[in-house]
Amino acid sequence: MGPHPAVAAIRLAVRRVLAEFSDEVPPTFANPAVPPQFIRSVGDVDPRHAKFRRPRPRPAPSAPLVLVACSGGADSMALAAATVFEAAKLGIRAGAVTVDHGLQTGSTTRAVEVATRLRDLGLDPVDALGVNVPAARGHGGPEAAARDARYAALEAAAERHGARAVLLGHTRDDQAETVLLGLARGSGTRSLSGMAATAGRYRRPFLELDRATTRAACHVLDLPVWDDPHNTDPAYTRARVRHEVLPVLEKHLGGGVVEALARTARLFRDDADALDVWAAQVETEVTHPDGLDPARLAELPAAVRRRVLRRAALAAGSPGGELFARHVEAMDQLVTAWHGQGPVHLPGNVRLRRQAGRLAFRRS
Amino acid sequence: MGPHPAVAAIRLAVRRVLAEFSDEVPPTFANPAVPPQFIRSVGDVDPRHAKFRRPRPRPAPSAPLVLVACSGGADSMALAAATVFEAAKLGIRAGAVTVDHGLQTGSTTRAVEVATRLRDLGLDPVDALGVNVPAARGHGGPEAAARDARYAALEAAAERHGARAVLLGHTRDDQAETVLLGLARGSGTRSLSGMAATAGRYRRPFLELDRATTRAACHVLDLPVWDDPHNTDPAYTRARVRHEVLPVLEKHLGGGVVEALARTARLFRDDADALDVWAAQVETEVTHPDGLDPARLAELPAAVRRRVLRRAALAAGSPGGELFARHVEAMDQLVTAWHGQGPVHLPGNVRLRRQAGRLAFRRS
Repeated sequence: MGPHPAVAAIRLAVRRVLAEFSDEVPPTFANPAVPPQFIRSVGDVDPRHAKFRRPRPRPAPSAPLVLVACSGGADSMALAAATVFEAAKLGIRAGAVTVDHGLQTGSTTRAVEVATRLRDLGLDPVDALGVNVPAARGHGGPEAAARDARYAALEAAAERHGARAVLLGHTRDDQAETVLLGLARGSGTRSLSGMAATAGRYRRPFLELDRATTRAACHVLDLPVWDDPHNTDPAYTRARVRHEVLPVLEKHLGGGVVEALARTARLFRDDADALDVWAAQVETEVTHPDGLDPARLAELPAAVRRRVLRRAALAAGSPGGELFARHVEAMDQLVTAWHGQGPVHLPGNVRLRRQAGRLAFRRS
Repeated sequence: MGPHPAVAAIRLAVRRVLAEFSDEVPPTFANPAVPPQFIRSVGDVDPRHAKFRRPRPRPAPSAPLVLVACSGGADSMALAAATVFEAAKLGIRAGAVTVDHGLQTGSTTRAVEVATRLRDLGLDPVDALGVNVPAARGHGGPEAAARDARYAALEAAAERHGARAVLLGHTRDDQAETVLLGLARGSGTRSLSGMAATAGRYRRPFLELDRATTRAACHVLDLPVWDDPHNTDPAYTRARVRHEVLPVLEKHLGGGVVEALARTARLFRDDADALDVWAAQVETEVTHPDGLDPARLAELPAAVRRRVLRRAALAAGSPGGELFARHVEAMDQLVTAWHGQGPVHLPGNVRLRRQAGRLAFRRS
């Protein structure tokens, strides 16, 4: 008998991601201290993997390390358990980081509890990190501020431990929510392309799995799970999407909306990648020492031209987080609706002016 | 005093579209029979257009003709009224077509009533056309079958009258609904790009206006409006999107969702257009007399490669309406995951096989 299908699914998803690092595993050596969870779990491995039933060598200290980012919720606890299991088979080291945002009373106690559970699962090292979410919350509200602080902490932990990758527990449901949130902003292909399975050192092994699978796996593996009250707090936009919007979409548009949104995100990502390639190729052709060539820009498809303009504005020092579609549209007007108008003012005190057959940026 | 803002908005939208045909207007001649609605409406023209207060020449019989597709609902009645008004100013002829789908009892009486109203508004010619919606409804259900029959009737009427354009009353709200319906299918950029403002002989002047504006205009102009019961019938998916899904999105994602969806559609359309241009350019480079070159295809970004494969399958005779993302994905596997597998079977009895370093279609 193999493992429960949900457990098999989460392990397979993690195995595919960890395979990337298995080439870097040094020659292993016998390990007297196999983590207890590992011994517990060998009973349910696939019979074809029976060779793994004997105690396995502990990963060498020089083996590549992956860190699991774990909130203690079902998705990331399932990820932690599957990572311990698969990393041991591959001779990879698996650690974890849990972040205390300090936004709820008792959050520090909770982070310590989660860290203990992760150590009990066999993850090593395990960090419980407190972060300060700035009170001035700016663009995107409290969720965005908390996310920024969390990623900064993960980044620092990965650097400190020399981790090869940070694994994130986002599921297909999270992806669908992200697409809907992007859709509500009306901000185009890139933001609708959702979260990447691979981005820098981050990996999202569960992006093709649904939340029901991670929950089922936690249940079968008897993992203690913590439900973040923010996930059901209607003050949070994502929680509203999850509990109010997606069920209505599922009901009225027929089942499979989550899957459709996730598939859409993949297609958008491919589209956005291809258009970025085109924009990068064409950028050098339209760029002269004294500015961009509006005549050549005008010949490009709008989607490519606007990407070239956006890239040029970023290169001129306009900050990406403040450069919106309306700014790009205003720049585009200098190309496609030229009637001698004045310069376009962009964030970061950058101006774009059309003069003497060139589009030139100036920063003041 | 100019006209009510809603009336000004619908007229401006129509004027922008009709301007395209004003070059074709022959020298005009005085007309003794100005339509009564026109005389009624001259009182509220913009003062800057005061020159138009005197009776205007009737469009010459050889003047270009535009046809308004009119269901009798608020959107298309507003379109008909604005078109009569603006066409008269430009010397363009304005006619109308109303289609009886025969799906509701009394629909024929209704079509005759709508045609009478349109003639009273001053449209000429006005056709009331009955269509047969096939009982075998196939893909997309009754809405798709009715739409196909309607467009076929519009197409025939445009041919018969030699119309330069057919104007459709779709609003920004319709566009948002279309995007959501596409999203629920998970079918990628092209289907999410919604309806085009210009497509062949079709024009959608109201695509940037919301439904509230057309309703307000009908109210101000005292136009009789018919509310299609199908628009509120929950058996119809679009009606569910309109009355159940969009209000929930607006409530939970903040206002402006309709506008965001429409903006998204425009961006997607630009993206899809650009990628189609790229695919068309590259197609000749990868196509040889004995088939497509998989090595060259593999170098392309996925979004471009899949478009090239789709185009090639269509050219090989696979019908577009049945060629889905999974078929394109299967073709793509012959390029990116080649391990000597057999041919891919496509709709229309088309097979794609990889052999001797080429991808060759065969139709049986």
